[in-house]
Amino acid sequence: MSTLVSGEVVQQHNNRSSCWIIVHGKVYDVTEFLDEHPGGSKIILKYAGKDATEAYEPIHPPDAITTNLPKEKHLGTVDPNTIVQVVKEVTEADLRRKMLMEARPPLEEILNLHDFEAVAKVVLPEKAWAYYSSASDDEITIRENRLAYQRVWFRPRVLRDVSKVDWSTTILGQKSSLPVYISATALGKLGHPDGELNLTRAAGKHGVIQMIATLASCSFDEIVDAALPDQTFFLQLYVNRDREITKRYVQHAERRGVKALFITVDAPQLGRREKDMRLKLVGDDAGAEVQRGQDVPKDQGVARAISAFIDPSLSWDDIPWFKSITKMPIILKGISTAEDALLAYDAGVQGIVLSNHGGRQLDTARSGLEVLTEVTAALRARGVYPSRTFDIFVDGGVRRASDVLKALALGAKAVGVGRPFLYAFSAYGQEGVERAIQIFRDELEMNMRLLGVRTLDELRPEMVDASAIHSHVGTQPEDKLYNSTYQPLALAAFRSAKM
Amino acid sequence: MSTLVSGEVVQQHNNRSSCWIIVHGKVYDVTEFLDEHPGGSKIILKYAGKDATEAYEPIHPPDAITTNLPKEKHLGTVDPNTIVQVVKEVTEADLRRKMLMEARPPLEEILNLHDFEAVAKVVLPEKAWAYYSSASDDEITIRENRLAYQRVWFRPRVLRDVSKVDWSTTILGQKSSLPVYISATALGKLGHPDGELNLTRAAGKHGVIQMIATLASCSFDEIVDAALPDQTFFLQLYVNRDREITKRYVQHAERRGVKALFITVDAPQLGRREKDMRLKLVGDDAGAEVQRGQDVPKDQGVARAISAFIDPSLSWDDIPWFKSITKMPIILKGISTAEDALLAYDAGVQGIVLSNHGGRQLDTARSGLEVLTEVTAALRARGVYPSRTFDIFVDGGVRRASDVLKALALGAKAVGVGRPFLYAFSAYGQEGVERAIQIFRDELEMNMRLLGVRTLDELRPEMVDASAIHSHVGTQPEDKLYNSTYQPLALAAFRSAKM
Amino acid sequence: MSTLVSGEVVQQHNNRSSCWIIVHGKVYDVTEFLDEHPGGSKIILKYAGKDATEAYEPIHPPDAITTNLPKEKHLGTVDPNTIVQVVKEVTEADLRRKMLMEARPPLEEILNLHDFEAVAKVVLPEKAWAYYSSASDDEITIRENRLAYQRVWFRPRVLRDVSKVDWSTTILGQKSSLPVYISATALGKLGHPDGELNLTRAAGKHGVIQMIATLASCSFDEIVDAALPDQTFFLQLYVNRDREITKRYVQHAERRGVKALFITVDAPQLGRREKDMRLKLVGDDAGAEVQRGQDVPKDQGVARAISAFIDPSLSWDDIPWFKSITKMPIILKGISTAEDALLAYDAGVQGIVLSNHGGRQLDTARSGLEVLTEVTAALRARGVYPSRTFDIFVDGGVRRASDVLKALALGAKAVGVGRPFLYAFSAYGQEGVERAIQIFRDELEMNMRLLGVRTLDELRPEMVDASAIHSHVGTQPEDKLYNSTYQPLALAAFRSAKM
Amino acid sequence: MSTLVSGEVVQQHNNRSSCWIIVHGKVYDVTEFLDEHPGGSKIILKYAGKDATEAYEPIHPPDAITTNLPKEKHLGTVDPNTIVQVVKEVTEADLRRKMLMEARPPLEEILNLHDFEAVAKVVLPEKAWAYYSSASDDEITIRENRLAYQRVWFRPRVLRDVSKVDWSTTILGQKSSLPVYISATALGKLGHPDGELNLTRAAGKHGVIQMIATLASCSFDEIVDAALPDQTFFLQLYVNRDREITKRYVQHAERRGVKALFITVDAPQLGRREKDMRLKLVGDDAGAEVQRGQDVPKDQGVARAISAFIDPSLSWDDIPWFKSITKMPIILKGISTAEDALLAYDAGVQGIVLSNHGGRQLDTARSGLEVLTEVTAALRARGVYPSRTFDIFVDGGVRRASDVLKALALGAKAVGVGRPFLYAFSAYGQEGVERAIQIFRDELEMNMRLLGVRTLDELRPEMVDASAIHSHVGTQPEDKLYNSTYQPLALAAFRSAKM
Repeated sequence: MSTLVSGEVVQQHNNRSSCWIIVHGKVYDVTEFLDEHPGGSKIILKYAGKDATEAYEPIHPPDAITTNLPKEKHLGTVDPNTIVQVVKEVTEADLRRKMLMEARPPLEEILNLHDFEAVAKVVLPEKAWAYYSSASDDEITIRENRLAYQRVWFRPRVLRDVSKVDWSTTILGQKSSLPVYISATALGKLGHPDGELNLTRAAGKHGVIQMIATLASCSFDEIVDAALPDQTFFLQLYVNRDREITKRYVQHAERRGVKALFITVDAPQLGRREKDMRLKLVGDDAGAEVQRGQDVPKDQGVARAISAFIDPSLSWDDIPWFKSITKMPIILKGISTAEDALLAYDAGVQGIVLSNHGGRQLDTARSGLEVLTEVTAALRARGVYPSRTFDIFVDGGVRRASDVLKALALGAKAVGVGRPFLYAFSAYGQEGVERAIQIFRDELEMNMRLLGVRTLDELRPEMVDASAIHSHVGTQPEDKLYNSTYQPLALAAFRSAKM
Repeated sequence: MSTLVSGEVVQQHNNRSSCWIIVHGKVYDVTEFLDEHPGGSKIILKYAGKDATEAYEPIHPPDAITTNLPKEKHLGTVDPNTIVQVVKEVTEADLRRKMLMEARPPLEEILNLHDFEAVAKVVLPEKAWAYYSSASDDEITIRENRLAYQRVWFRPRVLRDVSKVDWSTTILGQKSSLPVYISATALGKLGHPDGELNLTRAAGKHGVIQMIATLASCSFDEIVDAALPDQTFFLQLYVNRDREITKRYVQHAERRGVKALFITVDAPQLGRREKDMRLKLVGDDAGAEVQRGQDVPKDQGVARAISAFIDPSLSWDDIPWFKSITKMPIILKGISTAEDALLAYDAGVQGIVLSNHGGRQLDTARSGLEVLTEVTAALRARGVYPSRTFDIFVDGGVRRASDVLKALALGAKAVGVGRPFLYAFSAYGQEGVERAIQIFRDELEMNMRLLGVRTLDELRPEMVDASAIHSHVGTQPEDKLYNSTYQPLALAAFRSAKM
Repeated sequence: MSTLVSGEVVQQHNNRSSCWIIVHGKVYDVTEFLDEHPGGSKIILKYAGKDATEAYEPIHPPDAITTNLPKEKHLGTVDPNTIVQVVKEVTEADLRRKMLMEARPPLEEILNLHDFEAVAKVVLPEKAWAYYSSASDDEITIRENRLAYQRVWFRPRVLRDVSKVDWSTTILGQKSSLPVYISATALGKLGHPDGELNLTRAAGKHGVIQMIATLASCSFDEIVDAALPDQTFFLQLYVNRDREITKRYVQHAERRGVKALFITVDAPQLGRREKDMRLKLVGDDAGAEVQRGQDVPKDQGVARAISAFIDPSLSWDDIPWFKSITKMPIILKGISTAEDALLAYDAGVQGIVLSNHGGRQLDTARSGLEVLTEVTAALRARGVYPSRTFDIFVDGGVRRASDVLKALALGAKAVGVGRPFLYAFSAYGQEGVERAIQIFRDELEMNMRLLGVRTLDELRPEMVDASAIHSHVGTQPEDKLYNSTYQPLALAAFRSAKM
Repeated sequence: MSTLVSGEVVQQHNNRSSCWIIVHGKVYDVTEFLDEHPGGSKIILKYAGKDATEAYEPIHPPDAITTNLPKEKHLGTVDPNTIVQVVKEVTEADLRRKMLMEARPPLEEILNLHDFEAVAKVVLPEKAWAYYSSASDDEITIRENRLAYQRVWFRPRVLRDVSKVDWSTTILGQKSSLPVYISATALGKLGHPDGELNLTRAAGKHGVIQMIATLASCSFDEIVDAALPDQTFFLQLYVNRDREITKRYVQHAERRGVKALFITVDAPQLGRREKDMRLKLVGDDAGAEVQRGQDVPKDQGVARAISAFIDPSLSWDDIPWFKSITKMPIILKGISTAEDALLAYDAGVQGIVLSNHGGRQLDTARSGLEVLTEVTAALRARGVYPSRTFDIFVDGGVRRASDVLKALALGAKAVGVGRPFLYAFSAYGQEGVERAIQIFRDELEMNMRLLGVRTLDELRPEMVDASAIHSHVGTQPEDKLYNSTYQPLALAAFRSAKM
């Protein structure tokens, strides 16, 4: 039984010299932890002597505090009779958000993945929108990710019997109802109280594979506990400076049935995301506590502190170690050149994700789709493509089933989709994710028929014209003076101005 | 003589258990038909016990109901003395539309085909505009169709005696006053009460060939009956799962003098047209009843239901059968690759239409004009181009006579024009279509003179520079920050602000 | 002495059966001429029995009426005592125009040629602006003319002694203070009461060569009479169906000292210029009377009637005849392909103008600058370039001295500039033209220094990078949904909203 | 001791026949100097008999007047008891500017270099903004400078140990904490009362090299005097027609410890900068007095007068002379072709700056980054690249550390950054410059890690895709009519309009 602590007592420990907080009804003494907190001490002190649950919730897994704080600092349960009711102030922003949620388009009017984003943009708290939607520097790569798909055109075949079309596939030996997996995204509770569980429940129901993020708001176990029997998960991994933490995390995941390990290799440091920085999102990526435990140079700001647990020394030399600690297939997530794809192949991993981290890391890096064409060419030149033991995945910018088909035609085994599912549950919860999956199904059926393929195996490189994929054209500066004197043509005019 | 049915009696059959409706003064018991209606039962029940003519009219051929409903459900003629007068409510939208029709620009101010579209956009009911103008997914292909023509530039020749220029031609053995035929479009009555007859009358008067659409609002016979003696028609065909229906339809057309059969091969399933879907156009493509008769999975929505009669299993293996049921030249409409063009040639058909269905099917498919260059190259490589027995047509995006001349210079025999004629009669009826034909004539005369050709035979590939036709350039994401700090140049300023 | 005719008598002849008009104080009986008038009878009948001078003036040379009307229809001089004073109504448009002229930027604030156009756009009567600025069809070529120059980039050389730079040249054996000549434009009086004389006076003063237009508002002799001794003119020629008229016109020009004959070969028929057509400019190009005299099919509208005197049968076979009637150098104006450039060379003329008629004829024809590169390549391949006996000129789209230098570097002898001078005098009369010439001088001096050339002879093809000149890129349709959800980056925000 | 002059006496010399002015408390007789003043006599006469300090200050080095005026015209010190207090009128613009300065974003919210420009644009006096931001002609090159960087894409490498990254380097033998130097810009006091000293102080503190501009507002010695011991300077040189002045200037600099001489070779004449000209900035570049001393053609305007001291005859033949007067490394600033790069190499200088003078000279000249690729290719073809004795620098358009890394990967030793530092101190003084340096550091660290390089030496050409660098694409004119009839897709609509 837990000790009962009186709310009045808690309230007295409200400063730097003695700082207690309440999270989920438990009382913790975080005085000595203040300077170690990756998000800085300031944000904790704001809740000194108070209930911090609401601020803690969206950006930490539930076990973050228990894992990181020594047992003796767990002071007990707050006495429910004494706790001063936290009267949550209903702000104008809350009211407005509530009104907007009520005004959302009915789910059946959501016709495509863009719609989810448009709704999420409106209903999300400003900081959540900024965190989810932001990318690095000038956000050129995030937009290029989308544009790249539109530089690839279809060469559809006709007069094939397409009465039956089948878009199911097998990904790393696991059945998937779609050639799409849910890619890892962080801090899901910023968008919805159930966070990543929305993904888990919808994915289970529809036979889609979810990749669990290291920085998820929900803890790994919460997610896996919410799964259906035999539901398939992959694990996304940020490698910790302390390899023991990483080892425990990976082996725990394997024990719980995760089927593949996706090691993020494009994030030795988190990118500068200015849209997010402008809003001073306190605790950016702060879900990382579970991985923390290093010295953090406190003077370099939140973003740097947060990413401090990620090991910038990670290198090819570490791959054998990963192979020694797990039997899961290992996939390197974040490859951007043919050179590194060959190194990965040589390192004996089971696959790669051609990805630029959704445009959130190195700006003006190329899109995964573009890299795909050079990677398959290089592997083919080596005589190791296509391969049954080395799979290529692509993520970034996918919004239509036609994008998926383009990537597959060019050699990808499946594509990862992140933000669209995040926006889907931010706007509509689990049902939004299900609707998104349904949209993929509808579009895949239509596009496969119109493209003249019955199964994904029938997709061929010659079904697309990707000759413009490497075309990076920035049009010349316009002639502003000429354009401001040129008078555009007008159409025939109606008689009345009342129109 | 038909039985007289009292209006009051009809009104009592106003629900799902007994549902009678009046169409064109006749009474029908559609109770058992409710669940078979491709447009769903809901829209019929709205008129249960009432006169449904006005809703029925624009999206069904007149004989749809008599063909589909067993004789015993034809209950007789409504007693004109008893029928409750349907007082048509004049809505604000009706008033507004009337006002707009009166304010239309006079026809002589219509200078080009764009003008028709601009007028139609304003005067058409919102749903009709959405149905006509919509295309699939992101509507990239519909716009590319237009842009492709503008990537082809003229190389005009001078100092040729162009005092006489002649733009008449022969299409599939039939004389045509223009190198343009009226391509098939559906549901003409949404735009004008006379529907496709506007096309028929104008085409007859000016020696232009009309392609009759399977999904026309007017029935095939209505259209042919409205023709002048010797007026030429082609027939567009959606192939029915029930080949007998198709056979009867084709053979009936041949008997009535139709000169060529254009089999649509790019629509095993209708595309998702979101502009249209957003307006929930009930009965989309519902003119298809005449072709109906299959089991329709009702739970998949209207669009899927509607297209259910179209056979997705249609394949190259079916071509011999078509050749066995008709002596008309057979043209495959919707070819998009050189590979399929060669298959078509080998299959012994008389021609192909390079088309993406006006952008309404597979989005990011290439334009017909672009495909034309690869198809002529492939046929030439085979040694079968130019050919007297195999013609190539192009449709999609044509708005100027100069577009027509570009397509012909690159090897097309003639081009199909659809929406512009549809918009012409939606805005101005038959006279609009005649004006559109006149505009083609004026532009052809001018452009042929300026290009230095006297007859269409003199058009040569070297008269155009099509080197950019395969250039699919999506410009890079712009540098928003830079562009928002850059201050554009200004022109010399006038002294007074009163301007 | 001329007969005196009473104003009251004139007023009685105010209808189709007897129609007299007054022009410049003279009375004419135009009853029988009504149906022959190229601009149609309607516009004349508007002035039946009245003074038509003001409408006649801007679009006819002064001698048009006396040349075209038989002597016996010249009824005499109107009696100044009887003529009813034409009280010119001062319209709101007149007042507004006057106000705008007063508000014009002072001439010294005009810094470039765009400024003239911007001022002219505001101060010109709407119809004049439409006539001057319009081009054919979608006005793509007129804009391409400008853009083509901006696809050519400089490769400037440094550390050359450029203390003295000289931009004078010799054009067809005639000295010119600029490598620019004033190209022919029509109907100058629409823009300024002195019409083309503004050009003549400024050109004479500054040693620039003027090309006299067949369709000038001022008569040929008026223009030549206004010249300084030894001032150089070229003549632009529309060839008449009646070759005798052309012969007289050419030989008269030669006798009066014109130094070269530029035969327009790209206008067998005038282009459709919709911006102009929308304003129903009565009498478009009506200056052509002096050339008139053919049967004109009245039912085809004004534009067609007007261009009727131009001979569409003009062909290469006519070149020997031109050589037989004049000793002036003959230049073919309006060549657009290497093929025709070679034919011109073979025909023994002295040069060609690579031109698309300012975008007013065949739309989507390429720019003269682009054609220049293929023409010099073809002539070089023939071994006849560079040549001392065959010069290449370019016109269309020139707005900067840098454009001139680009064309010269690529092989042009000089460039023609039309509209900018037209806008210059429309806005500021003769002084505007002088300022335009000064701007060319200033820019030439600066640009030659910065480019590292001291004389025009030093310009070399390798001083420009013209590798993009043939690049005709129409960017892909944008992804409207994506772009409308993407939130552009913002800059740091000021604290106060009062800015 | 200086003579005391009474303020009343000064006031009497207030016209062209006798003109005295006060500058920094001293009285000068400038009557005979009036016609020699490069900025014209008008601006001086405005202050005849008055205190001209405030107008003099921002555009002249403090010693300009003492250097240029003969000793006998230095009349003495104004008697402080007699001088009429100059009551500076506080204008509305002053008040507004003060208000804007107070409303500036706090410095910590400045996240990138664009932010400085955006703030400077608002807070700078209009004329200063125009002078700083303007470029020549149509300002195409200035924008191209930025765009060129965005046509180069990264090919980042992963799984390299990037725990330590180091962006320090050595430039011309001098240590630099950044691969960036502060490039020369003129007239710093227009932006901030301390002018270029802001740069000096920040550069010294952070180990960055400053290039001192010939046309700085602060005098050379003022700048050097403000330096830390061992702080490194380079010198930018406009070569004077009077080589003795240049010799004295260069040798003085060398004596004072300047480490390299950057001779500007792309400015035989200053470009026409219309944005600036429209504001009639009196005294443009007037800091040049110290270099003056030639006859200036007064009738050609201020800009020409100002640039008159710059010798347009400067040529390759002068290089040996420069080598004879200094032992400093000589760098030619403003090379734009491979040809001139080879000439520079052959001339034995120590390096070149590929630059178009920030777009302020020849418009439509290519960007330095683009030229870099052709220069390294040409040097490599000669077998002299890479070289330890010949360095290549690039300037123009750099706004991100990623730009710097691109230039270095392509072969530049370091890049020059001018305007961004100018805007930084215009908006925030020395602290702004420091923040700019900090931003470079943060971005370099992040980008090097994400690119997979630990030191600048590890940058390789294959780490960027520069294949589009020569792509100069001006997109085709758009189809305005088509685009104005096309109705863009809409997203799902919210129910309420209150959003």
